[in-house]
Amino acid sequence: MANFASDNTAPVHPKVLQALNDVNAGNAPAYGNDVVTEQLQQTFRTVFKAPDARVFPVFNGSACNGLALARMIRPYESILCHQQAHINNDECGLPEFFTGGKIVGLSGDHAKLSVASIGSLVEQTLEHAPHTSRPRVISLTQSTELGTVYSLSELADLSAFARAHGLYIHMDGARIANAVASLNCDPAKVVAGVDILSFGGTKNGAMLAEAAVILNPALAEDFAYVHKRAGQLPSKARYVSAQLQALLDDDLWITLGRHANAMAMALRDGLIDRAGVGLLHPVEANELFVTLPKVTADRLFARGHRFYPWPNAGADAYRLVTSFATTDDEVAAFLADC
Amino acid sequence: MANFASDNTAPVHPKVLQALNDVNAGNAPAYGNDVVTEQLQQTFRTVFKAPDARVFPVFNGSACNGLALARMIRPYESILCHQQAHINNDECGLPEFFTGGKIVGLSGDHAKLSVASIGSLVEQTLEHAPHTSRPRVISLTQSTELGTVYSLSELADLSAFARAHGLYIHMDGARIANAVASLNCDPAKVVAGVDILSFGGTKNGAMLAEAAVILNPALAEDFAYVHKRAGQLPSKARYVSAQLQALLDDDLWITLGRHANAMAMALRDGLIDRAGVGLLHPVEANELFVTLPKVTADRLFARGHRFYPWPNAGADAYRLVTSFATTDDEVAAFLADC
Amino acid sequence: MANFASDNTAPVHPKVLQALNDVNAGNAPAYGNDVVTEQLQQTFRTVFKAPDARVFPVFNGSACNGLALARMIRPYESILCHQQAHINNDECGLPEFFTGGKIVGLSGDHAKLSVASIGSLVEQTLEHAPHTSRPRVISLTQSTELGTVYSLSELADLSAFARAHGLYIHMDGARIANAVASLNCDPAKVVAGVDILSFGGTKNGAMLAEAAVILNPALAEDFAYVHKRAGQLPSKARYVSAQLQALLDDDLWITLGRHANAMAMALRDGLIDRAGVGLLHPVEANELFVTLPKVTADRLFARGHRFYPWPNAGADAYRLVTSFATTDDEVAAFLADC
Amino acid sequence: MANFASDNTAPVHPKVLQALNDVNAGNAPAYGNDVVTEQLQQTFRTVFKAPDARVFPVFNGSACNGLALARMIRPYESILCHQQAHINNDECGLPEFFTGGKIVGLSGDHAKLSVASIGSLVEQTLEHAPHTSRPRVISLTQSTELGTVYSLSELADLSAFARAHGLYIHMDGARIANAVASLNCDPAKVVAGVDILSFGGTKNGAMLAEAAVILNPALAEDFAYVHKRAGQLPSKARYVSAQLQALLDDDLWITLGRHANAMAMALRDGLIDRAGVGLLHPVEANELFVTLPKVTADRLFARGHRFYPWPNAGADAYRLVTSFATTDDEVAAFLADC
Repeated sequence: MANFASDNTAPVHPKVLQALNDVNAGNAPAYGNDVVTEQLQQTFRTVFKAPDARVFPVFNGSACNGLALARMIRPYESILCHQQAHINNDECGLPEFFTGGKIVGLSGDHAKLSVASIGSLVEQTLEHAPHTSRPRVISLTQSTELGTVYSLSELADLSAFARAHGLYIHMDGARIANAVASLNCDPAKVVAGVDILSFGGTKNGAMLAEAAVILNPALAEDFAYVHKRAGQLPSKARYVSAQLQALLDDDLWITLGRHANAMAMALRDGLIDRAGVGLLHPVEANELFVTLPKVTADRLFARGHRFYPWPNAGADAYRLVTSFATTDDEVAAFLADC
Repeated sequence: MANFASDNTAPVHPKVLQALNDVNAGNAPAYGNDVVTEQLQQTFRTVFKAPDARVFPVFNGSACNGLALARMIRPYESILCHQQAHINNDECGLPEFFTGGKIVGLSGDHAKLSVASIGSLVEQTLEHAPHTSRPRVISLTQSTELGTVYSLSELADLSAFARAHGLYIHMDGARIANAVASLNCDPAKVVAGVDILSFGGTKNGAMLAEAAVILNPALAEDFAYVHKRAGQLPSKARYVSAQLQALLDDDLWITLGRHANAMAMALRDGLIDRAGVGLLHPVEANELFVTLPKVTADRLFARGHRFYPWPNAGADAYRLVTSFATTDDEVAAFLADC
Repeated sequence: MANFASDNTAPVHPKVLQALNDVNAGNAPAYGNDVVTEQLQQTFRTVFKAPDARVFPVFNGSACNGLALARMIRPYESILCHQQAHINNDECGLPEFFTGGKIVGLSGDHAKLSVASIGSLVEQTLEHAPHTSRPRVISLTQSTELGTVYSLSELADLSAFARAHGLYIHMDGARIANAVASLNCDPAKVVAGVDILSFGGTKNGAMLAEAAVILNPALAEDFAYVHKRAGQLPSKARYVSAQLQALLDDDLWITLGRHANAMAMALRDGLIDRAGVGLLHPVEANELFVTLPKVTADRLFARGHRFYPWPNAGADAYRLVTSFATTDDEVAAFLADC
Repeated sequence: MANFASDNTAPVHPKVLQALNDVNAGNAPAYGNDVVTEQLQQTFRTVFKAPDARVFPVFNGSACNGLALARMIRPYESILCHQQAHINNDECGLPEFFTGGKIVGLSGDHAKLSVASIGSLVEQTLEHAPHTSRPRVISLTQSTELGTVYSLSELADLSAFARAHGLYIHMDGARIANAVASLNCDPAKVVAGVDILSFGGTKNGAMLAEAAVILNPALAEDFAYVHKRAGQLPSKARYVSAQLQALLDDDLWITLGRHANAMAMALRDGLIDRAGVGLLHPVEANELFVTLPKVTADRLFARGHRFYPWPNAGADAYRLVTSFATTDDEVAAFLADC
């Protein structure tokens, strides 16, 4: 039976676990002043071709987003995101908590923002100053909550708009590996124009490791305080950094993302022509949103397959998520039971 | 050469690392709905003889304190603690951030609060309502920031005072193992009267694992939201829970705490009679605060020993911290170079 | 020329000013412990037939909303409101600031929420606990931001829904007088089912005076702290209370609301049949939202009439607001220049 | 009988009330865009010889402090103040709420900070970064909570220290008029080196009017948002501004402060030589802190005089506060009953 409940249900990749074992020798300075964390800085700079980047390892993806946003805005400012964004729906108000500011959820097809979806909001808001929180950040999820991926040209349009209006770009990269694998390009191109990337490790084979990758060096100032004050500065930081280093070494993160995406595509290909099965969004990363006949869904659940109903897309809608650990056998078993 | 900089500089205990390797098989429900976390609940209940306790694994000790305090107070309330407490000095304002409330730092010998140190503060504050934040929690650090330990009778006095005045007791147990080892008694006695314990793992052999142990069952309500909103709910929770389980199994936590304490005592015994060496506080756990002649300190640093000056106790004051990983050889080497 | 920019541009009603002069004699206890504020309690209880109500005078309407909401939710909870609500758009994030929680803006015709507009949101959110802020309040604006008024049966439906789902009802009554005048019924009926009313005075002839009217007595507990901590407890409270008392005496507030509504209706009647003029929403209180030919709008502005373009309703949309101080002459002059 | 309970119990000065009556004619732009508020800007600039100052009228003194501090710090920073400061004790945590940061209360004679009282705190804290909130503001209360006044040279020392360490100076001027009257000098000298002054009106004859006087022009940027988001932007701002203008015209504020101080001095002179009466602090403004024999205090209360016990200074300690409205007769009556 298959587990497509979430990429969070997967275990830790063996190379990540090996890295934790390897790093477990002797004393090391606490709070990120260790050589593993120092090396990680260099690796991220190389991967993203960003020689001035600063990297802060954190425990948790929601927190990583919150730290990035807290650094970017003052409490009287706002963050523009898609209304389906994780920061708007799935973090229990953490972004408002960490920033003190306002989240403005916008519409847009397939969970993607566009310049058109933002429209004249920024101008109208500024004219209404100081009565409405001032827009300051566009937060983009890459890949999106609905398994789609911003193209490089879509990203370029949004970042040009942001620059023209004095806005920062935040990228929620909880599934950045899936996006990079999907775009099949240099990772540096995916983050062109991005000020802070929330780099996701946990959904892609890490145990618990994310990183705030500060690509705009001006935002590195005081980030250490933001990091500490939110309880996200690991005392034994080497053990978070080592996980990330293991993912970055030899492009393991992209390899794992590519595998997860391939599994999603195999699911898609196996489902697409079946009677009663509908595809709600293009499958561009490692998530599928489908409609299934009730009898099919019931059978799948009865046979032990794990996945979630997605009621806000309709009573017959479901989400399937693949991961680095998904096997061909799981896909085959699921399709056989459909 | 010896590293007495902090118990945070130590590595992970082999049994903790083994537990992480052992738990790394197959999928598991995310967000704490896994069997490892479920088992951990039972273990904590047994250890603290608290059948109604609820346990929430978290990543970080400061955050653990903040979650506990956030659950206990409303933002117009205050937390009474010693002015030397970690929550007052070493968390970059996290407690104010997580709670929205006020920290009131009080004096008291050897970093310990007493009923006398609180005095008539509670009554005077309530008479001044609503102009002053209402006291709601007494937060005690066990063992304290200065390496001392509250006795059971001191704890009983404070918890009786708290009950009489409608206050909660929070225990910052970042070094609870050292305190339990020092008191050499049933752990349940150390937390008698405590409403929420911040159970520390990271300083005592874990990689990154703490737990909010809710001993007052009424405070378990809604704690899951507090946990989530602060970015402290691990998606792959089994990997935090497994660390804690490894520490609790066979009382490993107490064994490790006892070892660290014994190393501190050996240091103390080796230092106490030397000319020019002074002891600033009783050594009751795994920290020593000493005065050293400058020539001695300089020599120790020059030979590669690691420890911190402690300037707020004077220009010749230093802190030495031992851990589960401290060896007899380290102690001997340090003393030989004194 | 006419000023339809806002009911905030109006002066203070003479009876309110007289009340301030009258109350200015001798010393009085500070912070609301004065006889004027005590008397105001009784008056509000009588007006709203709510013998257990508690009233807290405040300076400002946004703050009044924020206090009410802060008392109602914990920071991990959310407030459901119309996306056009003042709390969502016009308070610069104050509600998020005061509550720590999340504002969820919903759609609905003419700025009104309905049970249908809330739909299955509450249930779906609770199933997703603790990942999404828990809904706890429905905030209704009466009269609405678009000059419409909830009928008593619409209010009854919403409050029944709220009770069934454990939600509070907050009423933003910045223009409650206009709503009561429009419904032409006992004020108590307009607040049936409401837990806290933000009673508006400033837009209706006061100088600066609003009141948090706590109709659900359980919510009065600790409200004094919420009030104080937000800088909304007047030290010389008698001068805020006296304004409100003057409005309530002899139903002056309703008389003034009725006048403003009548002026809006006269404007509507004078505009409705003109070529090129469109009405965007029913006129049920003291605000009109209209489309005007550009030439007409330009002429009106050129002749000194004051009113605002309303660009988010279209390039040719405008808002006209009447007040207690609007005169027949102003209406006639405006219509003559149309 | 005399009322020395607080300067908040006094009524409104007739000239302030007259100003409110005078300004009550016709419409005026809301939210501070009116001519009264514009004129007030110029007046403040003249009074404090600060041609680039910006002034924001607010309702409430605690809020005024909170706004100033919120503009000055980021949430991971701290504010140094005397432990007796209003912001530390009497605002129910508002400063922590408005700023998100930490208040650090320091000791010092007669409620005054000095460079010595700050000592090496700033340096030690910065060395401990990012674990402790970074000091960013020194907040001084002038006149102090204990009725003393910083001399110009004390202020110069503190502001030189602040500049040298990159700190701002905030002045809580709830009783600034009393301080200026006491120092008997150009008001501009009293605020030399101050970045933001909380100018107090309410305790000195206003109805409810304070002003954030931004003397450091860089801090004016975005202050309008801070002002709005906290519910302190008056919609009918002319009615707050007019009160302040009335106080500033013809130096009425200083005249009133001088009167209040003179009444305090008369009380002091009448009390000082009596048996059993002790003076706890120098009387330099409009507050006395005295010890009285219990029989005396009881007699005074019994005869209807109003003043507060001050228990944190001892069981026999009392506070007497005079105001602009205190009369010679009140002082005589009080002394006669002593």
